[in-house]
Amino acid sequence: MKVADVGEFRLIELVAQTIREFNPADLSAHAGAPGGAVPFLPAVLVGIGDDTAAWQVESPVQLATTDTLVQDVHFSLAFATWREIGWKSLAVNLSDIAAMGGLPRYALVTLGLPGDLEVDDVVDLYRGMLDVAWRFGVAVVGGDMVRAREVFLTVALTGEAVPLPGSRTDLLLRSGAKPGDQLAITGFLGSSAAGLKVLSTGRRIEAEGAAGLREAHLRPVPRVREGLVVRREGGLSAMDISDGLLADLAKMCAASGAGANIAVDRLPIHPFVAACFPAEAETLALSGGEDYELLFAAPADVVARVRAAVEVPVSVIGEVTEDKTGGVRVLDRHGQVVQQRQHGWDHFRRER
Amino acid sequence: MKVADVGEFRLIELVAQTIREFNPADLSAHAGAPGGAVPFLPAVLVGIGDDTAAWQVESPVQLATTDTLVQDVHFSLAFATWREIGWKSLAVNLSDIAAMGGLPRYALVTLGLPGDLEVDDVVDLYRGMLDVAWRFGVAVVGGDMVRAREVFLTVALTGEAVPLPGSRTDLLLRSGAKPGDQLAITGFLGSSAAGLKVLSTGRRIEAEGAAGLREAHLRPVPRVREGLVVRREGGLSAMDISDGLLADLAKMCAASGAGANIAVDRLPIHPFVAACFPAEAETLALSGGEDYELLFAAPADVVARVRAAVEVPVSVIGEVTEDKTGGVRVLDRHGQVVQQRQHGWDHFRRER
Repeated sequence: MKVADVGEFRLIELVAQTIREFNPADLSAHAGAPGGAVPFLPAVLVGIGDDTAAWQVESPVQLATTDTLVQDVHFSLAFATWREIGWKSLAVNLSDIAAMGGLPRYALVTLGLPGDLEVDDVVDLYRGMLDVAWRFGVAVVGGDMVRAREVFLTVALTGEAVPLPGSRTDLLLRSGAKPGDQLAITGFLGSSAAGLKVLSTGRRIEAEGAAGLREAHLRPVPRVREGLVVRREGGLSAMDISDGLLADLAKMCAASGAGANIAVDRLPIHPFVAACFPAEAETLALSGGEDYELLFAAPADVVARVRAAVEVPVSVIGEVTEDKTGGVRVLDRHGQVVQQRQHGWDHFRRER
Repeated sequence: MKVADVGEFRLIELVAQTIREFNPADLSAHAGAPGGAVPFLPAVLVGIGDDTAAWQVESPVQLATTDTLVQDVHFSLAFATWREIGWKSLAVNLSDIAAMGGLPRYALVTLGLPGDLEVDDVVDLYRGMLDVAWRFGVAVVGGDMVRAREVFLTVALTGEAVPLPGSRTDLLLRSGAKPGDQLAITGFLGSSAAGLKVLSTGRRIEAEGAAGLREAHLRPVPRVREGLVVRREGGLSAMDISDGLLADLAKMCAASGAGANIAVDRLPIHPFVAACFPAEAETLALSGGEDYELLFAAPADVVARVRAAVEVPVSVIGEVTEDKTGGVRVLDRHGQVVQQRQHGWDHFRRER
């Protein structure tokens, strides 16, 4: 059945029903991976069905972010299922809340839909969002559905800072990096870009590696717990890697009025990436986007405590330097500066 | 200069600059109309430029809503300027917060843009949002920009309930209408739909009336103050008119488990509508959408106090009845039931 056959109001009712009836038994296989659910019931006062959603706050500091996926710009049905697209649409927003050290809470979902889309696909899209929402204790409380020529999917996500007694700050800011801080990263770099290469080139690759890279691209796991731990342990500065390490690190440096040195041989590159793309692995790690790993700058003792407290690997890749121009230098294994200065994805540029 | 010539990051910087530098002297003519600005400075902790926006709450109950305008579905450049489109994109969201009796606070704006759009048009779009944001004390604190084949504009808006000592409820809900309540409406009905008819048919109409109707369609004024007053005076139930009076009233009745009688001869139809479309005025008032007026159900004394406290006209158009099936009956001037049961705009239906 097509979207045009059921109409907006029936479609909203179907989606509301999908949300009400979703339960952990429906979670897609991946949703049970390490990280686990954050067990809490959001304090929803008004959900789908009134003029706005409403909730009771649990913290005096609220956060909000929004990210959009557009068909054939940010995702392709040639590579991804609707459920995977749903996962990613919420996960990338969770990653932003994670990068502030916040706890994600409530999501509003806007769908732009052509009338000839299958209703079942819309439901699968929501199931994908619910896979990740359930896992991280987020409630989908509202949204909008509109007719559009191409599918787009906008998630607006709120979160809140977790007040810590004696903490100097409630949030991890891009501007908080200080010369002498270590630069550390969760997980691996370049896996998502490698996954996209696998998907888009149809490259024949050993099964286990290909599946892992595909997963890294289509189902990034937002580092919510890790962000909370960084802040709890005294970290002041973090951001998530969406546009690629170099481009994102340059933003942190610019915001902090500091520079950075990073060492190529300390980049955490997954063995699958190194095996599948040996010639490009470093470039993928430095400039490939969409890893949604957490980059943070903190004193060595903070980094050590974070590493001890989280399950994902935490790698020190360099340090923050005194450089008010915000320069990012990439050093090779001999300490020589590599003149590598690439920028992340820019949606509108003709030059690409 | 085109969007594709400046790139995403420069465009974001231009928009951030437009927001920073906007001041009341830039307000478009209409923005100074009756209603006035709500004077307060939002407690923004983090604005554009970090992973998320952050703010200090002033109330324990937060609200959030989102609405999207898609080019050639919800607006047409044949009829509207970019500044008008910007106004409407935020105003329709403010209207939802108003319908809960809340105070609007922070907006996240997502733009889907083709690369060949003019940068100046994007800036004008934001100016239109700022016209209305400034007037109602809303801060634009973040958003997203993405490449898309058609322009779309999604606003996610937060607000908060204003706690009232001794109040039974913090919010105006659709489900709060009670048999015996009067049904009242702010302003006029059908003006927006009449404005769309003027715009889309290029109909030659006497200048003053045409301009007023055009304005009603392109620059609806959200009833924020009126929503706050309804709640302050003890109202429990309201919603805004976006899909047309009959369709929206039917939703209120369904949510409240009650029915409604409305009297055709009590519908507040603006003289311009009656003059320009005499044969269709009643139909426009009953079923034309996008008036963004506030429909509320409350005891007669509450309605009287609201009417005395606000500047816009408040009309009693009928009453809430005992009817658990949620039926809406339209009565003519002789008290006879008119079999008029039309539904509002449904974005996906083929039949339209």
